[in-house]
Amino acid sequence: MSEDTATIIFQPSGQRGEVPKGITLIEASRKLGVDIEALCGEKKVCGKCIIRIEEGHYEKYNITSSMGHTNEWQEEEDKFINAENKAKGYRLGCVTKVEGDMLVFVPEESRAGKQVVSKAARDIPIDWNPAVRVYYAQVDPPTFEEPLGDFERVCNALEREHGLTNLTADLFALRQLPHALRNGDWSVTVSVWNNKEVIRFRPGKQEKTYGIAFDIGTTTCAGYFCDLTTMEVLDTVSMMNPQCKYGEDVMARITFHMMNEDGLQRMSEDLIEGINELIDKAIAGTYPPKKKKKKKKGQKDAPDEYVEAPEEGKTYLRLTRDDIEDLTLGGNTAMHHILLQLDPEFVGLAPFPPVLHHSMNIKCRDIGINITPSAYVFVLSIEAGFVGADNVGVLLAEEPYKGEQNQLIIDIGTNGELVLGNRHKLISSSCATGPALEGAQLSFGMRAAPGAIERIEIDPETHEVNYKVIGRDAFRKFSKPEEMQAKGICGSGILDVLAELYRSGVITKTGVFAKEQKSNRSRRNPDTKMPEFVLAWKEESSIEKDIVITQKDVRQIQLAKGALYAGCKLMVRRMGLENPDCVKIAGAFGTHVDREKALIMGLFPDCPIDMIQGVGNAAGDGCRAALLDVKKRIESDWCSRNVEYIELTVESDFQQQFMEAMQLPHMTDEFPHLEGLVAPEILHQMKDQIVPKDTHMK
Amino acid sequence: MSEDTATIIFQPSGQRGEVPKGITLIEASRKLGVDIEALCGEKKVCGKCIIRIEEGHYEKYNITSSMGHTNEWQEEEDKFINAENKAKGYRLGCVTKVEGDMLVFVPEESRAGKQVVSKAARDIPIDWNPAVRVYYAQVDPPTFEEPLGDFERVCNALEREHGLTNLTADLFALRQLPHALRNGDWSVTVSVWNNKEVIRFRPGKQEKTYGIAFDIGTTTCAGYFCDLTTMEVLDTVSMMNPQCKYGEDVMARITFHMMNEDGLQRMSEDLIEGINELIDKAIAGTYPPKKKKKKKKGQKDAPDEYVEAPEEGKTYLRLTRDDIEDLTLGGNTAMHHILLQLDPEFVGLAPFPPVLHHSMNIKCRDIGINITPSAYVFVLSIEAGFVGADNVGVLLAEEPYKGEQNQLIIDIGTNGELVLGNRHKLISSSCATGPALEGAQLSFGMRAAPGAIERIEIDPETHEVNYKVIGRDAFRKFSKPEEMQAKGICGSGILDVLAELYRSGVITKTGVFAKEQKSNRSRRNPDTKMPEFVLAWKEESSIEKDIVITQKDVRQIQLAKGALYAGCKLMVRRMGLENPDCVKIAGAFGTHVDREKALIMGLFPDCPIDMIQGVGNAAGDGCRAALLDVKKRIESDWCSRNVEYIELTVESDFQQQFMEAMQLPHMTDEFPHLEGLVAPEILHQMKDQIVPKDTHMK
Repeated sequence: MSEDTATIIFQPSGQRGEVPKGITLIEASRKLGVDIEALCGEKKVCGKCIIRIEEGHYEKYNITSSMGHTNEWQEEEDKFINAENKAKGYRLGCVTKVEGDMLVFVPEESRAGKQVVSKAARDIPIDWNPAVRVYYAQVDPPTFEEPLGDFERVCNALEREHGLTNLTADLFALRQLPHALRNGDWSVTVSVWNNKEVIRFRPGKQEKTYGIAFDIGTTTCAGYFCDLTTMEVLDTVSMMNPQCKYGEDVMARITFHMMNEDGLQRMSEDLIEGINELIDKAIAGTYPPKKKKKKKKGQKDAPDEYVEAPEEGKTYLRLTRDDIEDLTLGGNTAMHHILLQLDPEFVGLAPFPPVLHHSMNIKCRDIGINITPSAYVFVLSIEAGFVGADNVGVLLAEEPYKGEQNQLIIDIGTNGELVLGNRHKLISSSCATGPALEGAQLSFGMRAAPGAIERIEIDPETHEVNYKVIGRDAFRKFSKPEEMQAKGICGSGILDVLAELYRSGVITKTGVFAKEQKSNRSRRNPDTKMPEFVLAWKEESSIEKDIVITQKDVRQIQLAKGALYAGCKLMVRRMGLENPDCVKIAGAFGTHVDREKALIMGLFPDCPIDMIQGVGNAAGDGCRAALLDVKKRIESDWCSRNVEYIELTVESDFQQQFMEAMQLPHMTDEFPHLEGLVAPEILHQMKDQIVPKDTHMK
Repeated sequence: MSEDTATIIFQPSGQRGEVPKGITLIEASRKLGVDIEALCGEKKVCGKCIIRIEEGHYEKYNITSSMGHTNEWQEEEDKFINAENKAKGYRLGCVTKVEGDMLVFVPEESRAGKQVVSKAARDIPIDWNPAVRVYYAQVDPPTFEEPLGDFERVCNALEREHGLTNLTADLFALRQLPHALRNGDWSVTVSVWNNKEVIRFRPGKQEKTYGIAFDIGTTTCAGYFCDLTTMEVLDTVSMMNPQCKYGEDVMARITFHMMNEDGLQRMSEDLIEGINELIDKAIAGTYPPKKKKKKKKGQKDAPDEYVEAPEEGKTYLRLTRDDIEDLTLGGNTAMHHILLQLDPEFVGLAPFPPVLHHSMNIKCRDIGINITPSAYVFVLSIEAGFVGADNVGVLLAEEPYKGEQNQLIIDIGTNGELVLGNRHKLISSSCATGPALEGAQLSFGMRAAPGAIERIEIDPETHEVNYKVIGRDAFRKFSKPEEMQAKGICGSGILDVLAELYRSGVITKTGVFAKEQKSNRSRRNPDTKMPEFVLAWKEESSIEKDIVITQKDVRQIQLAKGALYAGCKLMVRRMGLENPDCVKIAGAFGTHVDREKALIMGLFPDCPIDMIQGVGNAAGDGCRAALLDVKKRIESDWCSRNVEYIELTVESDFQQQFMEAMQLPHMTDEFPHLEGLVAPEILHQMKDQIVPKDTHMK
């Protein structure tokens, strides 16, 4: 072992390896492939990366001394680790440096879990008009009288048979031509991009071509694998954005870039690698599954051998990377910039200008995406610094610019993106909801992964809690405590928690904990002395801790819903409207949200409840529309030029609106549509609590 | 040492290293960086790669036995190595396999010497109209009211200030934009390609941009390094084509590709590496030269330290690769295809169709050329399989398509390329001169390198020889024998040799050695028993051999000049002309050729001698014209579409014309223009020898 390196072992995964001395444990964890949460991008402010240095186990691993194996305690750690835990060896991974060999335990709540990603393609009407089309050509062989070049002979045939003129060919495609022509006995299938450029030559007659539309979210990425000739979605593949390890939200990633010279490149390369894995996954699905060969009796352990196990009657396409000939890609401005290695620094600084708005056609090979070597990726245009290509995707899918109806489209991801209008005028804005509505940045907030609380009820009489976690169908009250294995609260549970806390009287309309409480679930945190409410007791959890929601958490959620409501309200006012004609909620949040609770909690202005619609992953649908219909690509640029971006924070009464909107529930009188829909007792209760104009919130 | 490898030492260079067993000595020489001639591309037919296995020296190198260290004698070797030399250990490098450790001696005549490359740029009229131009823009900083993207703000400024519209930007350039804008205090210099695409952003106001035009010859490559704003040629850089080690001529390289799976890639990569070295060389010339630091007295040997030694009053541009923003590139069809890794196999097979004729705009990064990352290389179009982009370059430089004069343009490289016509009609053809006129494929043919005979006189009375070699100004008769260090004959000496052999009576008009000879220089080769003539005795040579010209050599030259003359003649006839109005000879041959001797020897149809013109490296001039004037790029495609390619070998009397044209001298009566120009005694002598219609040549 070199003097400049140290051996690190991470428990409980057991991953181990040598790393250079002087790096932080978070950096070491990345090198060794261990996922530790780092929500803040190593700004030392989130306290999510708590780990425990297992000094006692050193001898077991023949590491004889722990003295001098880490740097000393850092001031920032005091905020997140109390004296007791400090004594037990807890540290923050982002400040603890490797100075010698270590055995490190990663507590479950610090582990970046695998999210349950589910972003299926919706049925939206799309015209068939793909950028890449295949043409078949029969070509005259060259003679002494007419020894014309291979490509010119193909061009002549394509003009004669298909009316295509002025074609060029990509160099990498041209390399295939001489043998494609001769192997196809002078007939050839030509893939043409935008009636302009040949991107592939195949021998003989072929009819199919394929593409994938990618929606790159801050947290999750999905790919819609399509047959470009039939528009059929063959498969939906998805993954966590591999950049999550560098920070949970957009600002954390931008910070990671600014604090690491190669940060941008690393985040980009990780994402590209992930995209390539998704492509391989999509392709793998076109082959029969592999089944392990049965061992014959008496046979020794052989290396793993697999056999194909095709389903009867099923045809398998057996595609290769070369068969993918077109890609589209949308994402918010930061994801867009990081993927393309465009400096995202200024997107994070007021007035948040992006490097460009234009859509782009980029050769896949230029950014390392492995499909047919001459293919392009179409990158959707960007509306503004905080309203990116993902929002353009939403617009392409929902087409508010084609109708008379005033649509309010809300895309709640890590930030809220808002569009309002119709074919006469469209305005957009973003509101700094933060990720609280998705469950992040709360004490026990987590992604939609197994163990996450997603539904909750609090008994107004006893304050007893009944809840459900992802990965288990039975509610708490039908389960034994140890069966719940709760770990935290995810986005879809957040609104429930807030509504129930309020309905049951645990918190008041201003969001503070009520003076009178009905159970020992309401208590003060032993360390911070701040009020908190226990959602799940230690014995119901898999992290050996009570899962609580704190006063600070409630404030975070209030801030988020206040920002969202105020944003919507100001936009509606700007358009000279009373209320929108309909509300569309895109994103995973829109799919899971309880429309009534959302209205009750005042997430957005009033609207007939049947005009509130979850539109699923509309951003992804828009990317898919752009894949299958080039007109959508033109619309994409139209959107980025014609949707007027409004900076709401400069409105004179923004602060006032924001403050008011943070109240619970938000001026229920403004929601006539709830009448008759919400249980009378709830409505009654809510009407009692008209929000005062003054507020505690600062 | 592994069992699968062997140590090879090459003498006299002393280069050594381990190579895998089983490869040939030629392959081993490439791996170890030893240059051995391989004219035929390892087809085992040229016999140029003779080496000697130095068995006696084994012990000196602690190699104890030579048994089994090579494969056995191959049939092909009999043709080139006689029994005596076989006994001395001579073998062919291309058939001798490495089976164990070896010490190998490379005789001087087998060494691929460094050629004296000289391809200076000529003054030809070129309009200033470069593809890449720089524009300066002052941009408004973004505000909350107008938070437009960086690129869109630059576009607005460029439209306002320069009228540029619909610009796109290359991704790699866009990556420079945010910091260029901010470092330039919102002013930026933009390099725009073809008024369409931004390929570079620089902070502040910059005025210069640079480009290089490359002419890729089979043997030599030259680059003209130009200031694109002033059109000035700043430097001319040149090198041997690094592919020479894979075979001397086009067919040898194509064969090398067909016989080696990675042959095409290797040849392409070697050439690209060479081009990158030329680029670096051009850039290095913009810095002051480095001078070694003087050692102080008593100082110990320090690592080499250099200081800049700028010339007084001289300004140095100090450019980087990024400052090169445009390239053009022309070469014959095979060089074009190999460089771009387009399969050249079918260019070598009748009817010789290229993969494409079109010119191409290729991103430099796609083929590994290191200049500014978003730059394009413009690759000139190709006329036909054997008339490539180099000939298009010649046309661009000479512009026969613009005048009334019927120009016959001859480009003698390794093959002869011919163009005839004027603005009404242009035809082209190629003739299989082979490389004999350039000195290759003769017994002692060599490139224009030190030691090459380039001028020769034979006394008609005594047959004594007087000659001059490259690298020594004094002729043989003013030198001591050992001062000559002759090594072979290069292209510019070939016509001299043939003319002098004939004038002095050594050979007759049909090219056979005369029965009566006047010195012991004419003799029969001891091995082949064929007649030969000694040009330089062993003691005048550096290769310890008499340098001779053989009967077979004379035949090769006759074939070459016959092919060229017949080709020209048939083209002139096709155009319905008696003779061309002028003859332009491009290439190194044209620069060095003695116009009178060329007419005497009948290289091309008669023409007033002052209308015969060497036009130097016209192909390179054409590439330079295309670099500085985009109209030339359009003309390039026009040429490849409108110059009619004529396959001369299908003409009914081609054989007859060819046979007649091989005679020496060719029907002098057809050259009235020689009267009064050529010394009377020579003309008289020639007129005596009217060629009979029958001939010995078969």
